[in-house]
Amino acid sequence: MLSFNESRILIDNEIRKITLPDTPAEIYTPIEYVLTSRGKRLRPALILMVCELFSGDFKKAVKPAIGIEIFHNFTLLHDDIMDKSPIRRNKPTVHKKWNENIAILSGDLMSFLSYNYISQCDTAILPEVIDLFTNTAIKVCEGQQFDMNFESYQTVTANEYLNMIKLKTAVLIASSIKLGALIGGADQADSDLMYDFGINLGLAFQIQDDLLDVYSDVKTFGKKPGADIVANKKTYLMVKALESASTKQKEILIKQFNTKKGSHDKKIKVVKKIYDDLKIKKISEDIINQYFNKAFEILGKIDVPNKKKVQLINLAESIIKRKK
Amino acid sequence: MLSFNESRILIDNEIRKITLPDTPAEIYTPIEYVLTSRGKRLRPALILMVCELFSGDFKKAVKPAIGIEIFHNFTLLHDDIMDKSPIRRNKPTVHKKWNENIAILSGDLMSFLSYNYISQCDTAILPEVIDLFTNTAIKVCEGQQFDMNFESYQTVTANEYLNMIKLKTAVLIASSIKLGALIGGADQADSDLMYDFGINLGLAFQIQDDLLDVYSDVKTFGKKPGADIVANKKTYLMVKALESASTKQKEILIKQFNTKKGSHDKKIKVVKKIYDDLKIKKISEDIINQYFNKAFEILGKIDVPNKKKVQLINLAESIIKRKK
Repeated sequence: MLSFNESRILIDNEIRKITLPDTPAEIYTPIEYVLTSRGKRLRPALILMVCELFSGDFKKAVKPAIGIEIFHNFTLLHDDIMDKSPIRRNKPTVHKKWNENIAILSGDLMSFLSYNYISQCDTAILPEVIDLFTNTAIKVCEGQQFDMNFESYQTVTANEYLNMIKLKTAVLIASSIKLGALIGGADQADSDLMYDFGINLGLAFQIQDDLLDVYSDVKTFGKKPGADIVANKKTYLMVKALESASTKQKEILIKQFNTKKGSHDKKIKVVKKIYDDLKIKKISEDIINQYFNKAFEILGKIDVPNKKKVQLINLAESIIKRKK
Repeated sequence: MLSFNESRILIDNEIRKITLPDTPAEIYTPIEYVLTSRGKRLRPALILMVCELFSGDFKKAVKPAIGIEIFHNFTLLHDDIMDKSPIRRNKPTVHKKWNENIAILSGDLMSFLSYNYISQCDTAILPEVIDLFTNTAIKVCEGQQFDMNFESYQTVTANEYLNMIKLKTAVLIASSIKLGALIGGADQADSDLMYDFGINLGLAFQIQDDLLDVYSDVKTFGKKPGADIVANKKTYLMVKALESASTKQKEILIKQFNTKKGSHDKKIKVVKKIYDDLKIKKISEDIINQYFNKAFEILGKIDVPNKKKVQLINLAESIIKRKK
């Protein structure tokens, strides 16, 4: 059985084997730059592992898995333009290293390139694969728009927030898992269960991401914590803090949103103090565990011997226990 | 038999029937704005008419035709960001009316939405349809990059130019036509012939576009001529002028590229004078006719009674004889 680590190495190697056209170099060079930069390779690894879970083999899933990874990197590329992010995976973003036009167009091309890989599956499942992927991509765009909207909102409800991360993050993880199931020959019921497993895993994954931004050790996290606080991101932590804050605490938080100048360190310190007072860390860990347990409960319903699920369970646990 | 005009009215009506989700309104409002603005509807009309040519019916082609129109409008939306164009079809462009982020993201969503429509065809042809469309979309991106590159080049050969417009314009027209043929049940040989017909028609169409920018009556053209000259676009006219210009004329043209200030009217006048002296209008009309005749020669090989081809021939002629 493939482990997460074996899967990501396999995907890395396959991606390095891709030969892109030489011209126009202006767009193919940034695409190569993005695809060969070190990502987690979580989504393609899930596809391979789930395909193997159902069929005992992962080979048929390799090309579609690469397609999903290309799509994921396209979303990061365009999101970075919209968020004006200068750095991604410790390297300058494409719009910083080259320019915005190059970033828009190489992203566009990647979105189509992803279809070239995803469609390399049995024709019997192609209609469902194309539908699943296309509708997922649309939802990811919707999620990104809600995320951008939230930056200028003073408050966002927990439900609004959960719907946004479902669209922006969980749906792609769930679709990757379902794609692996479909390619592996799972029946409709199991494929749908695996999708739900993925939604729950994806929600837990994103809230863990939010938590790590504030409560992580800079040594293991690899970057300075508090970036979401500085950017006024409505994370799960912030949404829950605004929900339970006293009038006084709420005033302080809203004042921090509107403060454009001033020290970032102080802003982080002020917001974190309120999180601590409101026990936001515990509240976030509780919901992560809730989604995580729900995911496991669903995985339990899949009619495959438990010993075959071990690597997938290890992967899921490593996501929740990750330090970066 | 559907005429071009009947086809575009049909497509316009179908597009108006599309119900997009209400939220996030930030991206769906611009998408509706773009889709309902008056375009030529050339590509979807071709799909319907070619489908009818082979099968006697066009209904099965309606959804994929809408998909191609959505894709075409996506390319215009993103191109307008890259070219910093303020106006499209007499209305402010999306990035001007809203902002760049909205334009990037609503364009992205449109590119995926187009797959939702294009994939609504018989499953037997879906693999070929997805392949054809995806590879076309990739070529269109490549063509846009070459076009942007050329703006900063001092000279571009006629071959480089023809390759660029083939990628940026002709391939989508050819693929639309081939799509109509495939949906209409044409065999592989006829589908491929129709593609070649489309490439030749598309090249003629684009050079006609270049010609209209300079040699058109402002009353029928509907906009001020010379925009390509002002923007230093390497059109077919410019490429051929640079090819046959004397040293003195070449110096003048290159000086015009590098002149950022000064009167636009004067720039247009100076360049047009050189075009006139070099008989560029005649040279351009000759190559348009050449491609046009080649297209007709190919259409003649299609084993369908000539009377069924009348509307398609009318459409092709109207493209070449158009005044705007």
